[in-house]
Amino acid sequence: MENVTIIGLCAAAFTTISFLPQAIKVIKTKHTKDISLLMYIFFTLGVVLWLIYGYCINDFPIIIANSITLSLASIILFMKMKYK
Amino acid sequence: MENVTIIGLCAAAFTTISFLPQAIKVIKTKHTKDISLLMYIFFTLGVVLWLIYGYCINDFPIIIANSITLSLASIILFMKMKYK
Repeated sequence: MENVTIIGLCAAAFTTISFLPQAIKVIKTKHTKDISLLMYIFFTLGVVLWLIYGYCINDFPIIIANSITLSLASIILFMKMKYK
Repeated sequence: MENVTIIGLCAAAFTTISFLPQAIKVIKTKHTKDISLLMYIFFTLGVVLWLIYGYCINDFPIIIANSITLSLASIILFMKMKYK
């Protein structure tokens, strides 16, 4: 595997997995006051579009990374809407 | 421009700009308790790697989108470290 591909995969892994500690935090604490609702509305919408884009161009890494991100972002968005 | 390219650009625009309301919120309130520090450490690292990847493959949209995201994520990370 080329070095540049490894950099790209690490980048995708970091930005994808980064939402896991935030999701765990809101599930544990149920505190979401400092989190921006608008951020997670825009972000979740964007990730859905990335997923559609991934399907359109048949790009497996885009589909996988954004499926995981969508699950995590949706949890945070749901908790934000439930516990304002 | 092809429809699929427009979907990709909208996806990039939404996920990039989504960090703006969160950055504005933490600047205004200085409250960051509910925000995960680990999320923004991982995320900022990931975006730096995306930038390096963009430079390596000479992809202008990746460079532009991730430069904006890096600025916004850095503000949130800085505020999180300053106002725990």
